[in-house]
Order: sequence, then structure tokens, then C-alpha cells
Amino acid sequence: MPKLIIQNGIFITNDENKPVVEGHMVVEHGRIAFIGAELPEPPAPGDEVIDGRRRLYMPGLVNTHGHAAMSLLRGVGDDLALQVWLQEKMWPNEAKFTADDVRAGTLLSILEMLKGGTTCFVDMYDHMDQVALAVEQAGMRASLTRGVIGLCPPDVQQSKLEEAKRFARDWNGKADGRITTMMAPHAAYTCPPDYIEKIVAAAHELNLPIHTHMSETIHEVRENEAQYGLRPVAHLEKLGVFTRPCLVAHAVHLTDEEIDVLCKYDVRISHNIGSNLKLASGVARLPELLNAGVLVSLGTDGAASNNNLDMFEEMRLAALVHKGVSFEPTAVPAWQALRMGTIDGARSIWLQDVGSLQPGMKADFIAIDIDQPHLLPHSNLISHVVYSASAKDVTDVWVDGRELVRNGECKTLDEERIKAEFNACYKRLIV
Amino acid sequence: MPKLIIQNGIFITNDENKPVVEGHMVVEHGRIAFIGAELPEPPAPGDEVIDGRRRLYMPGLVNTHGHAAMSLLRGVGDDLALQVWLQEKMWPNEAKFTADDVRAGTLLSILEMLKGGTTCFVDMYDHMDQVALAVEQAGMRASLTRGVIGLCPPDVQQSKLEEAKRFARDWNGKADGRITTMMAPHAAYTCPPDYIEKIVAAAHELNLPIHTHMSETIHEVRENEAQYGLRPVAHLEKLGVFTRPCLVAHAVHLTDEEIDVLCKYDVRISHNIGSNLKLASGVARLPELLNAGVLVSLGTDGAASNNNLDMFEEMRLAALVHKGVSFEPTAVPAWQALRMGTIDGARSIWLQDVGSLQPGMKADFIAIDIDQPHLLPHSNLISHVVYSASAKDVTDVWVDGRELVRNGECKTLDEERIKAEFNACYKRLIV
Repeated sequence: MPKLIIQNGIFITNDENKPVVEGHMVVEHGRIAFIGAELPEPPAPGDEVIDGRRRLYMPGLVNTHGHAAMSLLRGVGDDLALQVWLQEKMWPNEAKFTADDVRAGTLLSILEMLKGGTTCFVDMYDHMDQVALAVEQAGMRASLTRGVIGLCPPDVQQSKLEEAKRFARDWNGKADGRITTMMAPHAAYTCPPDYIEKIVAAAHELNLPIHTHMSETIHEVRENEAQYGLRPVAHLEKLGVFTRPCLVAHAVHLTDEEIDVLCKYDVRISHNIGSNLKLASGVARLPELLNAGVLVSLGTDGAASNNNLDMFEEMRLAALVHKGVSFEPTAVPAWQALRMGTIDGARSIWLQDVGSLQPGMKADFIAIDIDQPHLLPHSNLISHVVYSASAKDVTDVWVDGRELVRNGECKTLDEERIKAEFNACYKRLIV
Repeated sequence: MPKLIIQNGIFITNDENKPVVEGHMVVEHGRIAFIGAELPEPPAPGDEVIDGRRRLYMPGLVNTHGHAAMSLLRGVGDDLALQVWLQEKMWPNEAKFTADDVRAGTLLSILEMLKGGTTCFVDMYDHMDQVALAVEQAGMRASLTRGVIGLCPPDVQQSKLEEAKRFARDWNGKADGRITTMMAPHAAYTCPPDYIEKIVAAAHELNLPIHTHMSETIHEVRENEAQYGLRPVAHLEKLGVFTRPCLVAHAVHLTDEEIDVLCKYDVRISHNIGSNLKLASGVARLPELLNAGVLVSLGTDGAASNNNLDMFEEMRLAALVHKGVSFEPTAVPAWQALRMGTIDGARSIWLQDVGSLQPGMKADFIAIDIDQPHLLPHSNLISHVVYSASAKDVTDVWVDGRELVRNGECKTLDEERIKAEFNACYKRLIV
């Protein structure tokens, strides 16, 4: 099989022993075969050789929480509190979404993410077959789950759960292994306890992880205490959620004791700093979580509460905001934000061979044009990626060694058609 | 004189009566002659007609605090406290800067700002003739000042002050009126009181405003109290600084009483949220300042503490961070962040005919490509500019009606040459 060889590039590796390599990288059978200063052998006829000068290569970004179809609601409700935003702007509009709408919204988000250097994402939504088909078509990697809201009669609850199980079973390991699945009670405040227990049982039955929203707002925490006598962490612990591998989104409002509980169960957290700021939910205790050894990654959340899906921005916000609010300039240094946006994202969804540029790892990587004013001088490229770069600096994207974006153009998706279909859905849906 | 006519565009105007106009804009003699739904007369032969479809037009961004030449130190010292960063990383390196270095660093920053939609900036630095020449060449607008640090013998103090006066006198109103000047004691912590009084006297003599750093860190406030028995606001008030029109950068740590004093003197504040976060200086009391009626604009500060000069990012940080830390989702809504980044920036430096797209205003405006995934659907374009766009979405830039950037390329500056000279300076300077 012909190899892909990147020559004379600079590589951010996520290898702690040599975080930055100047030299060459060889990709074979979708995995990294070599990275280092000297090529082990010259390119063979048929190999694809890429001139890596003026480019920085790094692992693809991993977005560990979102609702891709919500791009249809970008800008529809801004500057509102979470409950108002959900109940008055999001849910009434989302109730109108058909499978076609979810397809259109998801494809637009995939286009945005992929062109912006995100190679893998987590999605929790409805009509998930459409999301899986879009991921398959795009060539991306994803961990997908049908999020279920249990505020409905028992028969509807049951059919939603069956659908979630069917989706999770059908798609786990599909798209050449690029898709994995999870089970997802939407949140403790949208699922009665017995329903959450049924979802946990289903996750055990299917041997799948659980993804859920948790402790996003003070309001949610207080309501949970009022209704169940427990804060969300203890409540979910009691319902057995943490007996499964678990990724929780947000986790903004945590006590020291709750951090200990999350540590004990090795619960992974998707830190959604941009969305938490925009919805005024607060600032999660990221430095304390990292100190405690919790595995934290980054998520954009949906485009309605961010309002873009630029993972560079999430890395930057994570690196900047916690410094400012803690008065601690060494909080969340650039290298840590970078890991959260890449390898720790992959580990958050239990992918062991994604997230670094090292031999044997899957070849999910991106190229950035570093010959631009805002990325000069080349003093510290890890700093530049976190503190200065943006999605728009990404030129090329590979997943499993396959080139999905070249010179800013997506090769697997028809951008003009996706935008036209998306605009048509928006015009029909939103009044 | 031929007119410039933008046809069939969408315009964010900053006109409170009609913030968004779909239609046409006519520019004549460097000013906006018309904006509205129907062209008053058809284009004449020789007029330049631009097809505005798929573009959003808005006032150019105004960056009200920075040190452009510090791009040479981007990434040189990250994740450090302000005093350490200044004393160990910035000042020793800056001491080596020659006029050529300042020229190279400034041109790179101007390139970054201009291509990113910033049409006007404030600069406080040394070797300011180089900065003024670069502004003149680029075609931008700027308010420039030789920042003086008084930690030196009296004769050196005196010669710095004379140089600052000479620069301010020479360049005020130059470059077809695009350059104005100010007097700038660097900060209360770097200028002895009698020196500040001399600078104030010079500002009176030249009838110029004053620009200074103020109350950036808690450390600074405490040291000021220890040394002079007063917090910085009272200290500067006592020294007569506020008897001149005044723009202060940072103003992070203010009491209610200090906000009242700043209000009383109509002191303008350049809010540097990105830099304040990165240096862990804290989060300024922006909602309180706005409620009190203080005129607040946005600044990037130098590229060494930001680390880019993307004013979209500053608008976004201002809109996001204050919501998150105050738990108030209506704090700093998108329209307010947009005004801070544009018209309130112009007003902060006493420009009355810059910052909105209305007849009679100077034609400083930019175009954004809104036919991109992250800027769809076109639900609320003011929201998209603040919450989703970035410097890289800017396609075209005009100042005084003159096109300086077209399709992302700067027409007045030689980008390749500027980058090469910048890299050469960096390699020579930084060890």
C-alpha cells in the first residue's frame, strides 16, 4: 500500500518526551508509521509526498460535547438564561425538527468542524441515524448517542429507550470503526430516576458508556436537591450511572466532595467553557479538577450556545479564563489546554489510539498555515496554537490517514449543496 | 470625483434607529454619502460598483490599547505573572529594540490588524516615528503616543519628555488627518509623581489627551497605596491627569467610588479583557462601568500578552466572560460588545466622525464573508459578528473610502517582505 509522507514539517506530537518534532512523518494503513528528524527510507514510487514547509501539523481536535443539528438555531436566542433559552427558544423550535432538518443541521456543523480541524466529535441528539450517516459520509470520527428526555408518558419513554438502544447497537463500530456509541439520559432534570435506572441497565446490557449533562447551573443543582434531597452527583451515583464508564458534560458546580466522587469512579468531564460563559452558567472549577486528576476534555456544546464550533477557541478560553478568575497566571498552561483539546478528548471517549502523533496511532491530524502575521514569530508554536490560532488557520485535515480537507476545501462533502439545504430548512422551520 | 457604490449588501450601521440595513451604500470624498434600501441615483460612468451579495459590511474595528512592536515577543513569555513577565521577559528584550525592530514589529502588527478588520488603533511605544510612518504607509487610522517610563535619571526623563512632545507635535493631524497623538506617562508605577505632573503640563501646552495604564493588577494598586498613600485613581486625580481628556488602559481593580471619579472626569477606559485574563490580572467591572455611564472600548494590548490582535475575539470575550462571572446572561449583550469594538472605540479617542455607517461619517468599513458554515443561518448577524466571527472572516477593508485590503490581501503593504524582515529581526534579537 502506498504511504503518505509529510516532509520537512513541524509537528506537535503530544508525546511528552518530544512535544515538537521538526522533520518527517510517514502514514501507512491509516496509522502513523514513523515520525522523526530523518526519514528511515526514501519515498517509494506511488507514495504520496507532501511538502510540509510553512505548515504546522498536530493531532486533530476532539470535541467531546455537542448537538450538531442545533446549528439551525445559531443566533436564534442570545443573551438569555439557560432555562428560558431551553424552554422558550430551543425546545419549541427543536420539536419541529424532522430527520431531514437534523441531517441538514448536522452536515453544516460537520463541515464547520472538519474544516476547522476537529476530526472527532461527540453528539447527543435525536434522529441519530442521520448524524451517523453524515459522519460516515464525511469520513470523520464520532461518538454518538441518542439523548433521551423522559418528561413524557411511560410508553413514549419506553419507545425512546428502545430507539436509543437500537441506534447504539446498530452503529457501534461502524464506518470502518470510526463511530462508537453511548447511552444518554439527557440530564437528571429531564429524566425521572426510574428512567435513568433503565438507561443504566441498557448501557450494562450493551456494554456501552453513558453520556449526560450534569451540574450545569446553580438552578439545576438546587432543584435537584429540592426534588430528590441530593445534589446531582450523589443522585446520579445513587442511580448507578457511574457504574458505567461515564462522560459528563459541564460539571460547573461541584463541591470538593463531588470532585472526589467523580475521581473515584473515573468519570470524564467535558468542559464547555464557551457555552457556560454565554449562558451565564458560571465557570467550572477546572484547576481543581485537573489537580484532582480528573480527565477533562473540551466541548463546544451546540452552536446555539457558543456560537461557533471552533475548538481552538475552546482551548483558548480554557487557558485564558481560569487564569483571570483565579489570579493564577500558571493555571491551565498552553500545553494543558492543547492536551484537553486533543488527546484527552480522545481518552474521554475511550479511544486509546487517537490524539497523538506517535507510531501506531491512528492518523487523525491537521495542518495549520503558520506563515501568517498572527502566528509569527515561531517562538513557541504550542503557545500560538492555543493563544493565537483559530479554525480558519487549518488548511488540511486527515482522519485514518485519509485526506478529508485540502487547502480549506472539504473533499468528502459538497459545501454549496449543504449550505443551500441548510438555509432551506432554516427558512421553513424558524418563524 | 467617482463614487464607490456597494450594491445589494447587508450593513451593520451602529445607527440605533436602523442597526441593520439591507441595500446599498455610496461613498464619496472618503465619506459615506448614502446608505439605504434604494439608491438615490443610478451609478455614473467611472463609479466603482461592488456587488455586496454574500457579504456583511460593518464599521471598522477600533483597537484602543496596544504596543504594536511587541509582536516580536509573541510567545516569548507565556503563563507568567505580570511583574515577572514585564521584568524578566519583556523589558530586557525590549531594551534591545532599535528603530528598525520597532518598524518591523509594527508593520507585522498593522498587517495582522488591517487584514483582520481593524481600521484604527492606539499605540503607545518607543521609536514612534517608525510607527507613524508605518500607519501612513498602510493607510490606517491611529492615535499614537510615545509612552514614557520615568525610572531613570532626570536628564533622561527630560529628554524622553522632549521626544514625546516633539513626536506628538510633529504627527498630530498628519497622514491626511488619519493620525492623532496623545501624551503618555506609561503608568503611575513607572513614573514618579513630579514626572507625571510635567507630562500633564505638556499635554496642556500641546492641547492633547493623555493615555496611560491604570489599576491593571491588585499588586499595582497595593504598591501605589504603600508608596503614595493613595490608590491609583486618587493618585492620578491628585497629579492632574484627569484635567486633560484621558484614556486609561485596563482599569481592572476599581472601587465604586473610583468609578464615580472616572465618570465625573469623563475618563475613557480601554478594556483589555484578553490580556487581563492571560496575565491573570483579573476581570474588570465592565457591567458596573457601563451602568455608571463610563465610555468603555476594547483593546488587545500587545501581542505578547494576548496573543493575537483579533478584535472580534476581544468583542467575544467581553460579551462572554462578564456573563459567566456575574451569572447574568443579559450582561454585555452582543450589540453592546459590537459598539465597544467600533463606535465607542472611536469616541474613546475623540473621533466623532468614525465608527458608524451613516451619511457624513468617514468611510472606515470592512466586509465579512457571511456565506460560511459558522455564520449561517442569517438569523442575527450582530450576534454572529460578536459570538462566531473572527479576524479571518474579513475579506475587504476601507479607510477614508480607500480600499486597503481586497479579498484578504493588503494592497498598501508588501506582506512577504514584512514577514521576512520581521523574522530577521526576531532571530537577531531573541536568544
